[in-house]
Amino acid sequence: MVVELISVGTEILLGNIVNTNAAYLSEKCAGLGLSCYHQSVVGDNEGRLEETLRLALKRSDIVILSGGLGPTKDDLTKEVTAKVFGKTLYEDAHTKERIAGFFSQMRSGQITENNWKQAMVPEGARIVDNHNGTAPGLIIEENGKTAILLPGPPNEIKPMFERDIVPYLNNLVPEGIYSKMVKLCSIGESKAETLVSDLLEGQTNPTIAPYAKTGEVHFRITARAADEKEADRLIEPVIRYMYRVFGDKIFATSEEVTLEDAVVELLEEKGLTLTTAESCTAGLLAGRIMNVAGASKVYNEGYITYSNEAKERLLGVKHETLERFGAVSAETAAQMAEGAAKAANASASVSVTGIAGPDGGTGEKPVGLVYVGCQVNGKIRTEEFMFTGNRAKNREYAVVRALTVLWEQLMEA
Amino acid sequence: MVVELISVGTEILLGNIVNTNAAYLSEKCAGLGLSCYHQSVVGDNEGRLEETLRLALKRSDIVILSGGLGPTKDDLTKEVTAKVFGKTLYEDAHTKERIAGFFSQMRSGQITENNWKQAMVPEGARIVDNHNGTAPGLIIEENGKTAILLPGPPNEIKPMFERDIVPYLNNLVPEGIYSKMVKLCSIGESKAETLVSDLLEGQTNPTIAPYAKTGEVHFRITARAADEKEADRLIEPVIRYMYRVFGDKIFATSEEVTLEDAVVELLEEKGLTLTTAESCTAGLLAGRIMNVAGASKVYNEGYITYSNEAKERLLGVKHETLERFGAVSAETAAQMAEGAAKAANASASVSVTGIAGPDGGTGEKPVGLVYVGCQVNGKIRTEEFMFTGNRAKNREYAVVRALTVLWEQLMEA
Repeated sequence: MVVELISVGTEILLGNIVNTNAAYLSEKCAGLGLSCYHQSVVGDNEGRLEETLRLALKRSDIVILSGGLGPTKDDLTKEVTAKVFGKTLYEDAHTKERIAGFFSQMRSGQITENNWKQAMVPEGARIVDNHNGTAPGLIIEENGKTAILLPGPPNEIKPMFERDIVPYLNNLVPEGIYSKMVKLCSIGESKAETLVSDLLEGQTNPTIAPYAKTGEVHFRITARAADEKEADRLIEPVIRYMYRVFGDKIFATSEEVTLEDAVVELLEEKGLTLTTAESCTAGLLAGRIMNVAGASKVYNEGYITYSNEAKERLLGVKHETLERFGAVSAETAAQMAEGAAKAANASASVSVTGIAGPDGGTGEKPVGLVYVGCQVNGKIRTEEFMFTGNRAKNREYAVVRALTVLWEQLMEA
Repeated sequence: MVVELISVGTEILLGNIVNTNAAYLSEKCAGLGLSCYHQSVVGDNEGRLEETLRLALKRSDIVILSGGLGPTKDDLTKEVTAKVFGKTLYEDAHTKERIAGFFSQMRSGQITENNWKQAMVPEGARIVDNHNGTAPGLIIEENGKTAILLPGPPNEIKPMFERDIVPYLNNLVPEGIYSKMVKLCSIGESKAETLVSDLLEGQTNPTIAPYAKTGEVHFRITARAADEKEADRLIEPVIRYMYRVFGDKIFATSEEVTLEDAVVELLEEKGLTLTTAESCTAGLLAGRIMNVAGASKVYNEGYITYSNEAKERLLGVKHETLERFGAVSAETAAQMAEGAAKAANASASVSVTGIAGPDGGTGEKPVGLVYVGCQVNGKIRTEEFMFTGNRAKNREYAVVRALTVLWEQLMEA
């Protein structure tokens, strides 16, 4: 079964946004055992979109279109697809009601006439409710060809794909495709791949594919099997092998579990509470930990201490430490972690202090230098990192490294 | 002059990597005044690559191919392009020497026989030296059609493009393209478009295109002109018109300026300092404000107060307020903002308290209910919002709305 992606949007052609949807959809389709040989991007232009869609339908079984389902007349994906399939559009009462409900929930939102355009759907199309926006997803089947229309915003397309499109596609693939993700932190991609290179090359069922994420390495293990039980029988030995090779570097063996999920789960398991003290990351670390629903069980408060004065007053960092070693130092990171734990009455704490850039670097302490402090049950550890990205990237890496140090400390606790 | 992009690489089709090269090249080409109507991704497959390239050359003047120039036999971009243009390959002595020199510089690098494949170039092609890798760039011109072949790694393609391809393309474009971005907050996309619908339709030079971002609306105004001065003459009246329509909702008229940039700039301009008090966003608001390099001039510290006890102890929220109105209430948001300003000795403050979900909602206070408190120079304001996304989206929107309320208060201060 061959799938093909068409991303619709002038903003992609202009380079205003990076096409992360295509990467997301490709990865998902590969995981479902679908072959993808082509991706295209086309603007909100009737003629070009029609031509691109016709070509895609000629060479692939399933065409997934994303974007161009908005309320303005620029948005043409639905209209062009209906034309190609020879369908007329009608106003779907259920979708209209859902859109009205969506707006009524937003106390500040105001419905405008063009919003009703999103309730128009092609006859015979399967309608997929959008739980995070107004544009519905649509599945149109005809003569063995399928077009799947999905909204462009990542926060709409992803939950819709997981919830409704994955089961739909799964039904189309004769043999089941089952996959598990093994997620590692505190190891580089090259090293991780080298350690399991035999496994990566030799295997055909299951196959093993590496993915590098910021500060993490993921291996997707994919099996073709008659049912989940048989798939487990194929996948489990690989996971056991990976545990022998990587040990505690594995923080999850499931697609959904993030590093912050793993950290929060460990905190709960060990009956610990956490606090954070951040300088250069300024809340991003706490913000990421609190992505985890229910993390309030282990986290009550945190501190953003940008100025030295705040580090002293809120966290009790010693004035002479700042004078002697500087705000960006292992000594300050340690005192930030200790002080935060004391102030918040928490049994675990993690701190970040560094130079995110672009300014503030010196010969001795260049941009990208970051210290992480971590304290679990009174045991303190500090780590020095040297990142080479821009301000945003350095802060992002600092967050992941802080989570990784915390994960390691919690595993030992 | 129409340009088209072909990205070659199975790793993009599998979703292993995000196609950032396409975004980079698109933005660069748009800036050079080239129109880009199509982007494609195709794997390292001879037949499909040939078909894709032939189609691209039929409909566009310039085709930029990236990737597939590596030393292995998987890499076919050069071979297929030479075939399509009817050229044979020869070994280029200069390139062979450059590759040998590249390896002799890398202390750990070892040259293998297949590396010499990269010294093979199509007859008549212009060779572009790669200063960061082995594969040369290539420009092939014939019958008014041009293929530009560039290496895939971002650290090779970007410097090569800046240094050699930009000047080459610049020579081809008669008129320059200039654009400005008008960015709005506190207005929805549909409403914003409706208010300037005449403008969106009527204009051909400059053209005006809307972009919806989370909680923001952007309009790109693009003019074709002989020089920047003429472009300004075309663009300025549109910006003045937008100011008349949207007034203070416009926070920037430049591509680079973000909402947090605008907020930090206003704080500096008015000589104010800021602090933050966050419950459900747990640091994301502060983290976003501190994206701004140099924001430390206006921001010293912030508070993450998840628990009620932390709200009382760190921010001085009254126990009876929490008892009577609850942690998610306008009253609590107001006291959080007031208390944070006092604790941090800041002249401006912004607070967020809400129910991000998925749990914690009640009939009276459902998931998505968020209160923002904002205090500038002692004047306090609270706003109620009702978001309809998942946990991540509700928190993201809460951050943007808090920034928007702060922006509005600062404009009035």
